Amino acid sequence: MTQEVKRVEAAIEQAQNAKSCAIVSSGDPGIYAMAGLVFETCKLKNIAIASPFSDIDRREAGAVLVVEVVPGIPALSAGGSLLGAPLTHDFAVISLSDLLTPWEIIEQRLEAAARADFVVVLYNPKSKKRTWQLERAQKILLEYRDSQTPVGIVVSAMRDNQQVCIVALKDLHREYVDMQTTVFIGSSASSHYLDFMITPRGYAKKYDLGGDQKTK
Amino acid sequence: MTQEVKRVEAAIEQAQNAKSCAIVSSGDPGIYAMAGLVFETCKLKNIAIASPFSDIDRREAGAVLVVEVVPGIPALSAGGSLLGAPLTHDFAVISLSDLLTPWEIIEQRLEAAARADFVVVLYNPKSKKRTWQLERAQKILLEYRDSQTPVGIVVSAMRDNQQVCIVALKDLHREYVDMQTTVFIGSSASSHYLDFMITPRGYAKKYDLGGDQKTK
Repeated sequence: MTQEVKRVEAAIEQAQNAKSCAIVSSGDPGIYAMAGLVFETCKLKNIAIASPFSDIDRREAGAVLVVEVVPGIPALSAGGSLLGAPLTHDFAVISLSDLLTPWEIIEQRLEAAARADFVVVLYNPKSKKRTWQLERAQKILLEYRDSQTPVGIVVSAMRDNQQVCIVALKDLHREYVDMQTTVFIGSSASSHYLDFMITPRGYAKKYDLGGDQKTK
Repeated sequence: MTQEVKRVEAAIEQAQNAKSCAIVSSGDPGIYAMAGLVFETCKLKNIAIASPFSDIDRREAGAVLVVEVVPGIPALSAGGSLLGAPLTHDFAVISLSDLLTPWEIIEQRLEAAARADFVVVLYNPKSKKRTWQLERAQKILLEYRDSQTPVGIVVSAMRDNQQVCIVALKDLHREYVDMQTTVFIGSSASSHYLDFMITPRGYAKKYDLGGDQKTK
């Protein structure tokens, strides 16, 4: 992360010298990624910035840097697509990294998301140094969800070493998970069908998807 | 939604007649969108499907349909990028549509997300027929968050009639919102700086982003 701060500072310095400059980030730069650090740094250093959609006079004022964020495919979309459709209903996204966030806050969020039956997407589930957090998250989820709840595990989505598997929540602790992994824990409505993890769109069975092809 | 069911059934019928077929959806097909309905329908009709990453023997078995989901940029990423960086920390995504989900469940999720200090992303906040849900959501959030909490409102992200604004939570009910709008409600750590809505990466101030360029 020290490197990330240096990259952002170098980019801002370039931009202040009237050079165009881009910071490249994998996935979506806005989700747990570099865009936030750019804005945080500008705000703390009191650097005048504007959106490309801002008033033209404001953008063209000499000392204003125009900052544009180009969205990308986040890991929750890439991983979700490989699993099938785990995110067709409400979900909560939680990072298990306690480097910048106290563990108590992470645990409160896990409990809140588990109790309110969100599908839960875990970013940064494990690293070489952070080894116990995922098992603790699994225990919290097991207090509220069936032990057979489907869990999708996607390692290195869309990369050469991609791995995709779906297991029961009770077995999550046995699976290979690393820093490049995204974990999808189903809600009470999620299911495992053949190769896929599916969360249906609604709780009410309003539309009849059965054999007779009628809709109610 | 009747149309959506028909589209999916027509696509499955085409595929079963050994024709390649794609269902196109705006945003990410996996987030509150068409991918879920495809899998739900196959499961309910007991249609044998396989992932493109599945075992080759299974994929090549005659009666198996191979279903691939191609991820897209979801509205939370597109809208987030236009606002700056609202999603650099944990967030909950909730649809306010009570057509397929009982309102009590939606309300429980709003409360859980508000209490646990998630950034909250609202999909389907309002339509011509559903007019009161967003104001009710605003009231729930105001029970747990400061009235000045920044709220980003993105109408028709990346389309011709795109509109982006950032207001205080107390003023959300006064703003223009429609079915094509995504609403981003900040956490206690989010802030509004010039044109942008920013959620910092961490609660702990572990990295010094100030003038002296050192990291601790």
